[in-house]
Amino acid sequence: MNGKYAVELSNVGSYCDRYMTDGYNDDYSVDQLFERVASVEHVSGVELVGNWHVSEKNIDSVKGHLKSTGLEMVSIIPDHFASRHWGKGSFASTDKEIRRLAIDETKLMMDFVVELGGDMITLWPGQDGYDYIFTSDYLQERDWLGEGIEECCRYRKDVKISIEYKLKEPRMRCYITNVGTAMLLVQEVNEPNCGITLDFGHSLAALENPAEVVAILKKYGDKLFHVHVNDNYGLWDDDMITGMVHPHEYIEFLYWLKRTGYDGWFSFDQYTYREDGREALQEGVYWLDKMISVANEISDEKVNELFASGRAVDVSKMLRDIVFK
Amino acid sequence: MNGKYAVELSNVGSYCDRYMTDGYNDDYSVDQLFERVASVEHVSGVELVGNWHVSEKNIDSVKGHLKSTGLEMVSIIPDHFASRHWGKGSFASTDKEIRRLAIDETKLMMDFVVELGGDMITLWPGQDGYDYIFTSDYLQERDWLGEGIEECCRYRKDVKISIEYKLKEPRMRCYITNVGTAMLLVQEVNEPNCGITLDFGHSLAALENPAEVVAILKKYGDKLFHVHVNDNYGLWDDDMITGMVHPHEYIEFLYWLKRTGYDGWFSFDQYTYREDGREALQEGVYWLDKMISVANEISDEKVNELFASGRAVDVSKMLRDIVFK
Amino acid sequence: MNGKYAVELSNVGSYCDRYMTDGYNDDYSVDQLFERVASVEHVSGVELVGNWHVSEKNIDSVKGHLKSTGLEMVSIIPDHFASRHWGKGSFASTDKEIRRLAIDETKLMMDFVVELGGDMITLWPGQDGYDYIFTSDYLQERDWLGEGIEECCRYRKDVKISIEYKLKEPRMRCYITNVGTAMLLVQEVNEPNCGITLDFGHSLAALENPAEVVAILKKYGDKLFHVHVNDNYGLWDDDMITGMVHPHEYIEFLYWLKRTGYDGWFSFDQYTYREDGREALQEGVYWLDKMISVANEISDEKVNELFASGRAVDVSKMLRDIVFK
Amino acid sequence: MNGKYAVELSNVGSYCDRYMTDGYNDDYSVDQLFERVASVEHVSGVELVGNWHVSEKNIDSVKGHLKSTGLEMVSIIPDHFASRHWGKGSFASTDKEIRRLAIDETKLMMDFVVELGGDMITLWPGQDGYDYIFTSDYLQERDWLGEGIEECCRYRKDVKISIEYKLKEPRMRCYITNVGTAMLLVQEVNEPNCGITLDFGHSLAALENPAEVVAILKKYGDKLFHVHVNDNYGLWDDDMITGMVHPHEYIEFLYWLKRTGYDGWFSFDQYTYREDGREALQEGVYWLDKMISVANEISDEKVNELFASGRAVDVSKMLRDIVFK
Repeated sequence: MNGKYAVELSNVGSYCDRYMTDGYNDDYSVDQLFERVASVEHVSGVELVGNWHVSEKNIDSVKGHLKSTGLEMVSIIPDHFASRHWGKGSFASTDKEIRRLAIDETKLMMDFVVELGGDMITLWPGQDGYDYIFTSDYLQERDWLGEGIEECCRYRKDVKISIEYKLKEPRMRCYITNVGTAMLLVQEVNEPNCGITLDFGHSLAALENPAEVVAILKKYGDKLFHVHVNDNYGLWDDDMITGMVHPHEYIEFLYWLKRTGYDGWFSFDQYTYREDGREALQEGVYWLDKMISVANEISDEKVNELFASGRAVDVSKMLRDIVFK
Repeated sequence: MNGKYAVELSNVGSYCDRYMTDGYNDDYSVDQLFERVASVEHVSGVELVGNWHVSEKNIDSVKGHLKSTGLEMVSIIPDHFASRHWGKGSFASTDKEIRRLAIDETKLMMDFVVELGGDMITLWPGQDGYDYIFTSDYLQERDWLGEGIEECCRYRKDVKISIEYKLKEPRMRCYITNVGTAMLLVQEVNEPNCGITLDFGHSLAALENPAEVVAILKKYGDKLFHVHVNDNYGLWDDDMITGMVHPHEYIEFLYWLKRTGYDGWFSFDQYTYREDGREALQEGVYWLDKMISVANEISDEKVNELFASGRAVDVSKMLRDIVFK
Repeated sequence: MNGKYAVELSNVGSYCDRYMTDGYNDDYSVDQLFERVASVEHVSGVELVGNWHVSEKNIDSVKGHLKSTGLEMVSIIPDHFASRHWGKGSFASTDKEIRRLAIDETKLMMDFVVELGGDMITLWPGQDGYDYIFTSDYLQERDWLGEGIEECCRYRKDVKISIEYKLKEPRMRCYITNVGTAMLLVQEVNEPNCGITLDFGHSLAALENPAEVVAILKKYGDKLFHVHVNDNYGLWDDDMITGMVHPHEYIEFLYWLKRTGYDGWFSFDQYTYREDGREALQEGVYWLDKMISVANEISDEKVNELFASGRAVDVSKMLRDIVFK
Repeated sequence: MNGKYAVELSNVGSYCDRYMTDGYNDDYSVDQLFERVASVEHVSGVELVGNWHVSEKNIDSVKGHLKSTGLEMVSIIPDHFASRHWGKGSFASTDKEIRRLAIDETKLMMDFVVELGGDMITLWPGQDGYDYIFTSDYLQERDWLGEGIEECCRYRKDVKISIEYKLKEPRMRCYITNVGTAMLLVQEVNEPNCGITLDFGHSLAALENPAEVVAILKKYGDKLFHVHVNDNYGLWDDDMITGMVHPHEYIEFLYWLKRTGYDGWFSFDQYTYREDGREALQEGVYWLDKMISVANEISDEKVNELFASGRAVDVSKMLRDIVFK
């Protein structure tokens, strides 16, 4: 497996949180963000966020940046979470106009991504969910969510709609929480261009094992379209430098990607609040690159033996051999 | 909604844990367990565990107990977790003989439950999963799990197979973790007699909101077959007295059961290690009974208004009115 | 126990998060925030955040607001977390100048709070901690933290320094995580005006039971100086409407406050992103008020009986009687 | 730092859980357990559990085993959790007789450990705590706990009493939960022979970073007496093979042990339910041994540089260099 590395453009920018509202560092312009990414070794693609990085106003400029940096257009994440009108939902909003807006925004970004040379939308409906019990009609809102995404999928069959799940944040409870509820939605939409973005950290925070998720997505229709990488402490989307906390889980994850023939991108989605984002990205890339090499060294024959015996002590021995040469 | 209350027979017995291996109290015989349940107000059904309570050796005796106590046979949980041969899996075991045994045991219990006047199996494959990375072929083992359950479903269409999901314990990672992965399995099996047992506490420990799970099960084919009740602190299957920790979530859960027309059993699945199980069961029944009354008082009209506004402050007001009259 | 209710001024304002950086609602001026608080029934005090609400520039204006609204000055939370220079720490920063600034800022706010009629500082060193292993000298930085706070305590004995602990956020790992590490710090500082602010939600997210924390603070020197109220789902500082998720834990918590003679403030610290903050505050106040009434009805005699028997079933019965009269 | 490895004798035996009550494997006699430990490379000490492994009846036999195997007597863990009379508490029981029994049992084991050539008791009051709110007088019971341990410490100054903390299990809420509450107890007891056993997995499950705990124990009186090793997934005491899940945290932990001059034992406390305990122990030993080598290679100079810069990217680079040579 050869890693193709991309990055969501904000990774190399400044970050804020609910207290540090002006950000931990100075802002960078989109121009500067492109330049910063271009300077990172091994990164060859970018993922853009609607409104933050790409809109009707600057699409020509973005095209220029892609050309001048040689970076590939991997995916656009339409803004369904960062503008005030999305505050109480997008596709699943109780407001019909908002639901329409969510669909229209997605279609626009589908057109844009093609215009920019890409073929994928990462759909993250982070505001679709609820905070308190009894505030939401789960049946009706899930229906709206499915119908909206279905309409987008049918709009252009040449663009993949890759749904990213997350347990919580910004909503206290999001609708598309884990691989199970995400796959139920994909099956409901039932369009070949509808699949899933697996964010390693979201998977951990949903108490999943990402390697197992890869297998599940293979089993139920080969629906892994895209991968986001980062790391965390297991209970929250800390968006740390890739590989710093869960190296073993990463190796198994990467092995399973190889085993199941994944040939898509690895897109960095780190939020390294107090680090320089460019340096942190470079570190993440080096980690991932090394871990992919390790995963590549693990043969299917060896693993099949482990699966046959099911002995954790044999796995333990293999991991020791791999990690501390 | 009228509550029909049942209990898994062990609830009124003695409990052990990995340290207190001889149990926190003296053991009770199956005869005594039946008598204890019969003395609990409002409980009219029992759920039995294979080998623990029912087997080829004592089925006549069990029949006698049901008759003498007037308790209804609600469900049998085949033993797929408590005998040593299940230690590394049942339906998903790498050992073909074990997989066969898991199916045969299930079929036997399907016959038994009918003989005892019931029509449902609660299938809890708690040992199907893994502890360590790289020990299990998730694809193959999930296939086996699905195939085994499918064979059972086809064996007798007059018996429901209701799958109970749980994130972890006894396996550190179980395969059927939450409503999403459970429903994927149900859709894979694709038999009308295949559905899901929702254990309130398992749902909490999987970081779900049980009321939302009720809606999801309605949406994807009306697949809620059975309900287990208990409570916990949110991170582990503490199996506490029903209603003691999450009264508000319970009220929303019960309201959604009413809204979606659930007419099945509420089966208690408490493990009150240091309490008298019979007394703890009685308390759980009183809690549930009261909470069902509360849920019954909540009108769909009122709730539809809340859904339309989405205002948590209105929910807050309603809950205060309900809880502290 | 009579509840005295205060509120951190931002509660009635607009909130942002790391995605919705411009806020879920329009901003309110400090003038407007005061007016909004003044319109909430039963609230008689305010807690201010340095820089956000009070600084050298506007102290006279704040004094005017206090006078015109009749609100009592309860506490100032100096800004040690929201200005960029605190990004990598305040009292425990590796930068000597920053550490000096943290102390000076605190002393200034000590003077201000007295000038405004109060006598307490809530110290929340949320940026003192670390994100990654191997980045911080835990020994040295904890020493600095203790020394800085000690210097502040000695600066004015007439002002209480009440330390607020929190497990994580904004730092992925904060230094003052729970009642234990907070009390170790208080004992290290060893000044009578050094104590602890117990935030109900922080306590839950640290996997504590807040009622037990009240007892611990009583036991180790009567060090509970201040209380923050809100609620959450148990794994994160969701800052929800008080009482909506953990009513039973709240009742025990309030009972223990009564039992141990707490006579301080209940200061609301909610972050109701998608609600109107004023309405959400009012709801929280009504919940707390009702729950205090319930706690007041629970007699020490009754509770002592429960403690003597240790029977959960008796507690269960009492709670049912209390909650659903 | 040279690792001295010991093991709690049950590690090489059979394990049970609340479902698999007869154990995942055949039982081993104490004789066999000693033999099995003796066959494990690099292990030179044993930790025994009262009643399970050592009692008045078999002390001579144990002495013989120690002599014949050459294993050193490291510590005894008195049984305060596995016999039925401890079901609702030991030192903090509301029953005066039980409290007396807890003290007497501890003193007996203090004598035994000396007789067997050791000088340390690991005190794990796992049943001292509570399951439900309102069942326990936290003030009174914590007082009893402190007084009981103090009496034991004073009984023989030549024997260390090393308290092991744990957040939950077997009690749903234990009293001595984390390093903070444990150190408050140690300070309350205030005897030089009273200190703390840090169990790596308990620390993780209490949401701590074990390396930071080492620093805290150094800071507050050099109170780290003993170390237990194992690993888990972060939310429960899974007691997995040491190093399999958190290798990076382990390296930092071991580095801090070196930095602070720890010269005690590393005692394995694994519960490898479905593995052969002896093989799993051997694997754990190899992991730990390798990780200690790695920690030994990390110089204080290098780390001091990292502490001065606080740059996670520099840590990231160092870890990559260490892990994947």
